Amino acid sequence: MCRWLAYSGEPLHPSEVILDTQHSLVAQALNSPLGAETVNGDGFGLGWYPETPAESGQKPVPAVFRSTEPAWNDQNLREISTTVRSPLFLSHIRAAAGPPIQQTNCHPFRHENWLFMHNGALADFATVKRDLTFAVDPSLYPEIQGTTDSEVLFHLALTLGLQDDPVAGLGAAIREVERVGHAHGVQFAVQGTFAVSDGTTLWAFRYSSVGRSRSLYHSTDMDTLREMYPDAERLRAFGRRAQVVVSEPLNDLPGVFTEVPESTVSILDDSGYRHEPFLAAS
Amino acid sequence: MCRWLAYSGEPLHPSEVILDTQHSLVAQALNSPLGAETVNGDGFGLGWYPETPAESGQKPVPAVFRSTEPAWNDQNLREISTTVRSPLFLSHIRAAAGPPIQQTNCHPFRHENWLFMHNGALADFATVKRDLTFAVDPSLYPEIQGTTDSEVLFHLALTLGLQDDPVAGLGAAIREVERVGHAHGVQFAVQGTFAVSDGTTLWAFRYSSVGRSRSLYHSTDMDTLREMYPDAERLRAFGRRAQVVVSEPLNDLPGVFTEVPESTVSILDDSGYRHEPFLAAS
Amino acid sequence: MCRWLAYSGEPLHPSEVILDTQHSLVAQALNSPLGAETVNGDGFGLGWYPETPAESGQKPVPAVFRSTEPAWNDQNLREISTTVRSPLFLSHIRAAAGPPIQQTNCHPFRHENWLFMHNGALADFATVKRDLTFAVDPSLYPEIQGTTDSEVLFHLALTLGLQDDPVAGLGAAIREVERVGHAHGVQFAVQGTFAVSDGTTLWAFRYSSVGRSRSLYHSTDMDTLREMYPDAERLRAFGRRAQVVVSEPLNDLPGVFTEVPESTVSILDDSGYRHEPFLAAS
Amino acid sequence: MCRWLAYSGEPLHPSEVILDTQHSLVAQALNSPLGAETVNGDGFGLGWYPETPAESGQKPVPAVFRSTEPAWNDQNLREISTTVRSPLFLSHIRAAAGPPIQQTNCHPFRHENWLFMHNGALADFATVKRDLTFAVDPSLYPEIQGTTDSEVLFHLALTLGLQDDPVAGLGAAIREVERVGHAHGVQFAVQGTFAVSDGTTLWAFRYSSVGRSRSLYHSTDMDTLREMYPDAERLRAFGRRAQVVVSEPLNDLPGVFTEVPESTVSILDDSGYRHEPFLAAS
Repeated sequence: MCRWLAYSGEPLHPSEVILDTQHSLVAQALNSPLGAETVNGDGFGLGWYPETPAESGQKPVPAVFRSTEPAWNDQNLREISTTVRSPLFLSHIRAAAGPPIQQTNCHPFRHENWLFMHNGALADFATVKRDLTFAVDPSLYPEIQGTTDSEVLFHLALTLGLQDDPVAGLGAAIREVERVGHAHGVQFAVQGTFAVSDGTTLWAFRYSSVGRSRSLYHSTDMDTLREMYPDAERLRAFGRRAQVVVSEPLNDLPGVFTEVPESTVSILDDSGYRHEPFLAAS
Repeated sequence: MCRWLAYSGEPLHPSEVILDTQHSLVAQALNSPLGAETVNGDGFGLGWYPETPAESGQKPVPAVFRSTEPAWNDQNLREISTTVRSPLFLSHIRAAAGPPIQQTNCHPFRHENWLFMHNGALADFATVKRDLTFAVDPSLYPEIQGTTDSEVLFHLALTLGLQDDPVAGLGAAIREVERVGHAHGVQFAVQGTFAVSDGTTLWAFRYSSVGRSRSLYHSTDMDTLREMYPDAERLRAFGRRAQVVVSEPLNDLPGVFTEVPESTVSILDDSGYRHEPFLAAS
Repeated sequence: MCRWLAYSGEPLHPSEVILDTQHSLVAQALNSPLGAETVNGDGFGLGWYPETPAESGQKPVPAVFRSTEPAWNDQNLREISTTVRSPLFLSHIRAAAGPPIQQTNCHPFRHENWLFMHNGALADFATVKRDLTFAVDPSLYPEIQGTTDSEVLFHLALTLGLQDDPVAGLGAAIREVERVGHAHGVQFAVQGTFAVSDGTTLWAFRYSSVGRSRSLYHSTDMDTLREMYPDAERLRAFGRRAQVVVSEPLNDLPGVFTEVPESTVSILDDSGYRHEPFLAAS
Repeated sequence: MCRWLAYSGEPLHPSEVILDTQHSLVAQALNSPLGAETVNGDGFGLGWYPETPAESGQKPVPAVFRSTEPAWNDQNLREISTTVRSPLFLSHIRAAAGPPIQQTNCHPFRHENWLFMHNGALADFATVKRDLTFAVDPSLYPEIQGTTDSEVLFHLALTLGLQDDPVAGLGAAIREVERVGHAHGVQFAVQGTFAVSDGTTLWAFRYSSVGRSRSLYHSTDMDTLREMYPDAERLRAFGRRAQVVVSEPLNDLPGVFTEVPESTVSILDDSGYRHEPFLAAS
């Protein structure tokens, strides 16, 4: 129901990819060719890890800026995204599907050094919300600040081990949502793409119970791009390790963006991009 | 943590009592002499029943206007409260004590033809929130839109019969909060004043587990006031049945406002004002 | 750059035409097939004259509710537009073209008993703003609260006699904008549709310097509509004198909406709808 | 009508002085012992120069974050002020005295590499606004985005040479306001404290036409403070050159804050703090 973009690489002003490209995330807020909704004007969020490494033994704490204004005219988003620099950030624009427009319903959500965001929906959420919320660990329960399906899913994944193993943790949470959904007669309970980070690694998931998920793309590595487009002025803004995962391609150039397959988790870290099957049909 | 005012009587522009008096509710937002907090700038709400009676057999449906802006500078509140006329309205200004500033956390809360608002707090709410929320009837659970203690208490009271008997229903909910609190080591679980209406009758409660509740006053009946202050130009705005219950007196005139006793429910309807003991020490 | 709707007729809940129709004004906020912009999500406004006639010799004072939120998800707009009833109201959704998103830039604008709103733009406004603002009567100058071209145009029209003769006053203001524009090398200075009311009559203008104005439609009179669609349940909500002027048809039914010609002023009052040439090519 | 704080010194998280002290700027928003108003809840702003020096020959461009929410509960302010680090920042909390609550009326105001903020008022601003606004250079006129006296004064000072000589430029602007005021029968036209910076130097002014200005304090230099309070854990957060100018002392410790005299300009730069007479009685 939304669009999102996650970046990993050399420290960068987030504006470079959320404001300054042909189909930037903010441009997608006004007109999203591939989205379930054309307009994503119901608030936005930007979560970013600091440029300076955390002190030894400490985990990097991300900052989060969220607003209920449409992203396309938000002056503060311009100020902040052109000012801060970050080696890993998650940004999200929302098209609300029920839950009210309020900052606590804007992605990304944060728990300690973890960030999470989601495009898609849990089907019939009003029906399953109570059971799913009840399944969240009581110690995590008071942290739920908003009323979205996404935030409950995040806390369910935290309950089921996301901090130890993000792929297993989110997988278990999705299976739990499907199980509770079936118990309530909901056939295809989960739909979406998901981004998770601990400040070092970025995991991006594409999965839906029905097997037709929201769109998701990743960018080609910079060395290849520079060979393909040796004269591209634009590429000079980016370092060698710069890569994004994003709901829709940021431009129309052939070869720059590749679709992430169904039932797949993409993993970006210092060693580059790879992906693996995720909850593939059993 | 807040201030509120409820009116019952001849149809009136709410502005007459929330904007235009010496210590109006909006003035209390900036400076509340008797409040637990001096400033109540974290949003406000106005819920009002329509001037025209509902058709036979139908219940009156109240409208609710809520905003996160401080009440003192909200132009829309001025426009609306000077435009609509209502025989029964509830208005509230908030001083947040934790839960975020968002419309879904602003009072009054509504369920069908019922309105509810609260000044005070459930002690250690983070500790008891989960148990109290899961005690809400599953059919009512999805209606909870915000994250305040007050909204959970309202839905607990609805679960426990508020619509059949408001005094018994709210009483049972308060006792349940105290019971759950004790189970978690919370000694004095409930603090506050509460207003409830179905569009015909207004119930206003003053109660706290510790026996020292937030302040609450009711106005003297108009016939008496007109005898006391025969020259008061100001009184001409009000009909014979006009009465308010309010967190603080709206002016300094002797005899106009009387404190509602501890552990008491005030009842205002066509037959005037009366009060009864409520959850008095047993 | 926006969309608007004005209603005149028997008192009506504004929601009937701004929320509850196939292509209601709020639906146009998300998807405006005929608009210069597809999305109109940069705030909105509703100005309405009271249902009860003003006392003898007094002019009706309209209320105005404005918000910077996108109209499609604004709960307060739903509450208010389904609650108040009005015989004459103006509603507007904004697609900002530069000036910031703030309530003071939302239409309609008000001066005493007059309301004004505008879809379109004054070309190169930054260039002509100072001269046009300087041309506003000094006694009206302090009333300008926002930074839009529309508000300056309204105050220029007030300066040039709008309250005595709205057609002549707005015409003179438009000619002044064109004159100042020419002096600054702006060729086609004025573009738009405009609505003006004093609470009794509604004037709706379609004019642009270039002769290709923003779209504008008026509804067919109710007697004719009832003959055309004798079984239409929907029409029963409206009285005999109900008519709207609107940027786009509210539904796809043949014969219900008729385009207002270029360089035309439509006039709606107790005697029905008529239109006249306005600033036609000289 | 407001409170403000400006910092110059080693790069610092703004939260250290606007959130984390006894009487921090945000605490003053809720309760300002020395302010003309007790509550300053009508929005806020933070303008900060970047930590990394501008490239040779380039001027540092400040970022500005502004919001209409009360500062005390604004989560984004917490996120941003604890994340960014800056060697020179200006922060402001507003108590509106007429002009609407909107971001464009929040301080600090920016022009190229310059920031400006103001506590106080131009007397009878509605009377003098038109003359003062038209005295602004036409090339600067379109930059005025809001409706405050402060923003007009800033642009008047820019018109009169602030970028060449801030003390002379603001002085000339103040004299112009007094001159225009006298012409309109306004006796004491200017009241306030003002902060101006180009990213390298901070100028802080205390001046009023009547000679009784809003309060202003500067902090004692760090070497002295460390001698006075050798055990103060709190001081370790600050570098040797850290100094603030602020509407009210940030704590009650003797010797930490010194009042800036009437008709004085304080100047903070790499060489420390000094002050000079400003528009002293002639």
